[in-house]
Amino acid sequence: MNGMDGVASGLSGRSFASVDDFSNRELACVLAAAGDAADHRERYTDTCRGLIMASLFFEPSTRTRLSFETAMLRLGGQLVSAVDVGATSLAKGETLADMARVVGGYADLVVMRHPWDGAARVVAEYAGVPVINAGDGGHEHPTQTLCDLFTLQRERGALQGLRIALWGDLKYGRTVHSLAWALARFGATIVFRPGAGLAAPDYVLSKLASDYGGELVRGDVLSQSEGEGILPVDAVYVTPRSPHQLAMLPHISAQVELDRGLDALYVTRVQKERMQTPPGTKPAGYPVVDHKLLRTKGFEKSIVLHPLPRVDELSLDMDSDPRSLYFKQAHRGVPVRMALISLLMGRAPQLPQPPEWPQDDWQPVKHQPYLHDTGVKCPNERCVANQPSEQRYLTQRFSVVRGTPLRLRCRYCDHEVVAVAVATAEAYDEPASRRKYHPATSRWATDIREENLLVFASAQAAEAQGFRAAAGA
Amino acid sequence: MNGMDGVASGLSGRSFASVDDFSNRELACVLAAAGDAADHRERYTDTCRGLIMASLFFEPSTRTRLSFETAMLRLGGQLVSAVDVGATSLAKGETLADMARVVGGYADLVVMRHPWDGAARVVAEYAGVPVINAGDGGHEHPTQTLCDLFTLQRERGALQGLRIALWGDLKYGRTVHSLAWALARFGATIVFRPGAGLAAPDYVLSKLASDYGGELVRGDVLSQSEGEGILPVDAVYVTPRSPHQLAMLPHISAQVELDRGLDALYVTRVQKERMQTPPGTKPAGYPVVDHKLLRTKGFEKSIVLHPLPRVDELSLDMDSDPRSLYFKQAHRGVPVRMALISLLMGRAPQLPQPPEWPQDDWQPVKHQPYLHDTGVKCPNERCVANQPSEQRYLTQRFSVVRGTPLRLRCRYCDHEVVAVAVATAEAYDEPASRRKYHPATSRWATDIREENLLVFASAQAAEAQGFRAAAGA
Amino acid sequence: MNGMDGVASGLSGRSFASVDDFSNRELACVLAAAGDAADHRERYTDTCRGLIMASLFFEPSTRTRLSFETAMLRLGGQLVSAVDVGATSLAKGETLADMARVVGGYADLVVMRHPWDGAARVVAEYAGVPVINAGDGGHEHPTQTLCDLFTLQRERGALQGLRIALWGDLKYGRTVHSLAWALARFGATIVFRPGAGLAAPDYVLSKLASDYGGELVRGDVLSQSEGEGILPVDAVYVTPRSPHQLAMLPHISAQVELDRGLDALYVTRVQKERMQTPPGTKPAGYPVVDHKLLRTKGFEKSIVLHPLPRVDELSLDMDSDPRSLYFKQAHRGVPVRMALISLLMGRAPQLPQPPEWPQDDWQPVKHQPYLHDTGVKCPNERCVANQPSEQRYLTQRFSVVRGTPLRLRCRYCDHEVVAVAVATAEAYDEPASRRKYHPATSRWATDIREENLLVFASAQAAEAQGFRAAAGA
Repeated sequence: MNGMDGVASGLSGRSFASVDDFSNRELACVLAAAGDAADHRERYTDTCRGLIMASLFFEPSTRTRLSFETAMLRLGGQLVSAVDVGATSLAKGETLADMARVVGGYADLVVMRHPWDGAARVVAEYAGVPVINAGDGGHEHPTQTLCDLFTLQRERGALQGLRIALWGDLKYGRTVHSLAWALARFGATIVFRPGAGLAAPDYVLSKLASDYGGELVRGDVLSQSEGEGILPVDAVYVTPRSPHQLAMLPHISAQVELDRGLDALYVTRVQKERMQTPPGTKPAGYPVVDHKLLRTKGFEKSIVLHPLPRVDELSLDMDSDPRSLYFKQAHRGVPVRMALISLLMGRAPQLPQPPEWPQDDWQPVKHQPYLHDTGVKCPNERCVANQPSEQRYLTQRFSVVRGTPLRLRCRYCDHEVVAVAVATAEAYDEPASRRKYHPATSRWATDIREENLLVFASAQAAEAQGFRAAAGA
Repeated sequence: MNGMDGVASGLSGRSFASVDDFSNRELACVLAAAGDAADHRERYTDTCRGLIMASLFFEPSTRTRLSFETAMLRLGGQLVSAVDVGATSLAKGETLADMARVVGGYADLVVMRHPWDGAARVVAEYAGVPVINAGDGGHEHPTQTLCDLFTLQRERGALQGLRIALWGDLKYGRTVHSLAWALARFGATIVFRPGAGLAAPDYVLSKLASDYGGELVRGDVLSQSEGEGILPVDAVYVTPRSPHQLAMLPHISAQVELDRGLDALYVTRVQKERMQTPPGTKPAGYPVVDHKLLRTKGFEKSIVLHPLPRVDELSLDMDSDPRSLYFKQAHRGVPVRMALISLLMGRAPQLPQPPEWPQDDWQPVKHQPYLHDTGVKCPNERCVANQPSEQRYLTQRFSVVRGTPLRLRCRYCDHEVVAVAVATAEAYDEPASRRKYHPATSRWATDIREENLLVFASAQAAEAQGFRAAAGA
Repeated sequence: MNGMDGVASGLSGRSFASVDDFSNRELACVLAAAGDAADHRERYTDTCRGLIMASLFFEPSTRTRLSFETAMLRLGGQLVSAVDVGATSLAKGETLADMARVVGGYADLVVMRHPWDGAARVVAEYAGVPVINAGDGGHEHPTQTLCDLFTLQRERGALQGLRIALWGDLKYGRTVHSLAWALARFGATIVFRPGAGLAAPDYVLSKLASDYGGELVRGDVLSQSEGEGILPVDAVYVTPRSPHQLAMLPHISAQVELDRGLDALYVTRVQKERMQTPPGTKPAGYPVVDHKLLRTKGFEKSIVLHPLPRVDELSLDMDSDPRSLYFKQAHRGVPVRMALISLLMGRAPQLPQPPEWPQDDWQPVKHQPYLHDTGVKCPNERCVANQPSEQRYLTQRFSVVRGTPLRLRCRYCDHEVVAVAVATAEAYDEPASRRKYHPATSRWATDIREENLLVFASAQAAEAQGFRAAAGA
């Protein structure tokens, strides 16, 4: 008895909008089922007979959609699809919530790709049936991450403690965001090696540093004399092997990790469709992965992954290299999605002993919800909460992320607003003249109780709400 | 033995292009099967195994298409789809008739949405397999009407004698046209409450008045002192409860009905895609349905229906009101379409006793076909008979609607041409100089025998065909 | 024991990118299975259960796609589709090879239509599963040819020795190219009757003359006094009935064949989408097939075929003529594709004795591959080998077609480059000053051994590569 059965049955009826919707054991359970589906497809042939998956793609996508649809058909299920619908043409002005309620009344499962960050979260709240995020804007692509983890685990034997480089468009590449967060939970060292101007967004690194227990080391503090092949890098995320290892010198730990060489290189294409560059122009300074790179120090044993499609960033000369696993990785999307679907539908067969069962079950950090409306807006214009059609029913929703600095994190898209000023809601009971705000860096930021905390993104915002600077602020 | 079995087997192999393709008992039979499919889905799981439905959508539509496709899959059938094809891209210049003959040779059932009024009728004539109209231009949407009737029957206990308001875009809202005609057949009182400039078209009201036995009362003759919440209305259709009730004072009957309050409010969105207004501009004077309205006199017990999607005309504050049934109505599209498909395919299981079995079986009025070509053209430019590609094989076809005034009704799209002059075809045997036409308001309009009746839309048209005004005309 | 079983099992796992991928017995085997599927559909109901077909349409097509999809569903298989994807939107810059490798890892069979000539050949090389060409640019449409052959065999009793006219757009009509090549293999007389400016391309006629054993006779040498109804024609292809019949006077043989009248008339629409004419303008000089034509000499017993859709070239007055078989032909696409799919999947049931079993099994002519790179380029700008994205991994590939003149034939799209100069690769071992080229019409063209043959499309090209004209050249 390993607890797998309980974990598996706990996934029944759930949605998967973000990698952080599942604990580490839940992810391990999906990977175990994926291995089972890959090795014994016949065990899954009829598990979803009688069930219908709605496949809603508001952005062009063929690979991901065909992978999901193949998975559902291999499970004996059926499909209805809406493909290449513009965000408005499906809707004729309809909200995501209405769409979710209608389609959720037809199908047993909804798979959705949408151009807005956080869209899958909203649909999951209204559909009444499990919803799987097949990509929400530039935010997450959590099932791609499952495929990535599955390939890493199969090829490297384990997920725990991997050293991996994320390569290319780390800004718009949503697969990279989900993957970084998931890897961090399995104690990885993650090297960020972006194309010029395509570094991972602050909110991705910020969540990495605050939620997963490791440390982020900027590339410029690393020794440039070693790890030549790997460097220059933008940043390295290091998980402590032992509690005191990182205590004082995280950049030394990072250096030690880098000197050991990389287990895997995760390459991504430039997401031209999200950029403002003229079509046809190739972005300058985009690092190309080819045979030459793979012969340099630190890459000797690296397997090469890529979520595909590739354009120019991954040389065709890599195709015959045994370390190239991207096509295998793509094919594994089918058993991985078979596993996920059958588990969410409560139809998975008895699962085998997993290759790797997490000792302690990492759970997403539960940040307190922010309870007041002080005019703070999610800064991400692609966020679902900032779309006029959705603002008719959605409110801005944030979590309070304690730390330095104090931030509000959007509960839809994970983008963050740094607090500049704080105040206490008890001030509302005072005469207007006595309402004071304090610098977010002051002790007030930690002393004000959660339920009373008011946050402002600027002094002006605080003053606009009738607060005045406290003495000494 | 209630006659149901015979009615059900009589539907096998039929098409459903218009609500008036079915008698009242046939509609009741579909509704009974829908109730059975809703309550006992498992009885339908394999009824259509081995059958293929072709789903042809020449206009963007997701909801209706997914509802049909879900229904077919729940019946164990399979799908082939052509979605979002422009009217010309499917065809590469092909006629509807050719398309119907080809696709009818592949599939066992065709479901089609098309921008031309009457398109489904043409396809039904050529496909050789049952055809279901999923919306033809601004004309009809008869399966939406089945969903509406099903919800009304389930929520109100019976269809007979309902008082219902049709709300919003009554001009372009094809769901409203099918529904008004169907409700009239079940003895409803129908209140027309259009947005500004969006009154129900003449042809819809005209057919209502001539074919279904009730009377149409214009809103301006109703007392403005009572039924305040409901008024102002554009028109009210009243079915006589007893033969003499309406005889002299239909507007009094209408007033009495209105004072009793409404059983249901049927709200529709503005069909912007059929209007010539600049995108983004909100039509002025569009009546909004919200909590405030639902608290006014006459609406206390109204259930609220909407074919969805909604835009602004139905306030989000209604969603939590127990009278709001639009999402339930949408979900019921699946069992309703399961019922219809399984009946047309001759695969429905034994049906239960229906909740309401019409005493006398209303049959569509059989108007005589108009037999001559006197240059009369259907006035509807969206009519299938007015499309250049289709005019290569389709002729203008009309029914003669006796009444005041005498009209020719297009057999494809129900639009009407009012007769101005009439003549007899026997005149063709006379010397040209003796061919006379008469005013359509004269006794000649009733005296000329059906097979000899010639109709002209204007005096000029009659003269162009070589007729001269009769003395005194 | 007729060898059928061996032929059938030999088709398992194969692709069908061109009619010449199959021998005559293999085609006969598919036709036998098609007859079986047409007459006994129930024998095929479950043959492909558990298999998934990916239907990839990079050009708009509804008929062909629905026919394939219906066929797969009738076999009990399932579908994933990507429809109306532009060549680039699926790809996001991806190569056909990458796409093939990814989709080949999902599905058990790929059916593809693509705007590039030769695209199906490339996908077949990389997918790892059987690939069926559903139309590649203006090149081939081999499954349409199977439908055509099946209808001809069923209606005429046999394929051997038919007299058939190909009518209309012989330039862009890819169905005509595949059909001409296939008919030639069954000893047909083929009459080419193009619209003005729409004659069959040289490469189609050239392959006909060089690969299939018959002779091509230009229309202008035929007697204009006979065969009036059929003439004027552009060209006639005649297969010899006996070895010496054509020896001296092929145009006499052609005349004799024509005077016997046509077995079939194969009409095609003008492929406006591949022409540079302004939309809406009707091409001048396009021959119309109507009742009048069908009453003239030579056409009395012709059945009329058309791959559909038709536009204006086939009069609607033909629909009621018993010789019109185009709708039947369209419907037969389903059993034909059922047969092909089940054979390629290795799932066909035991097949019946075929109506016509080829005495000797014609095999595609094996031209030697051209082994050197002398700068020769396929002249077809739509060829897959000339697309920038594909040139990153595809090389120009040719076969050497001996004959007068010597040609290089593109192995993707069959277009040809006529040799102007030849040389021997042994010259590379000589000092540069002694490298000589010779006219392609000289004895050198036949004397240089295959592995040494260098071909140039012009004298300049030879000189650019460092060769000089041989004395007397």
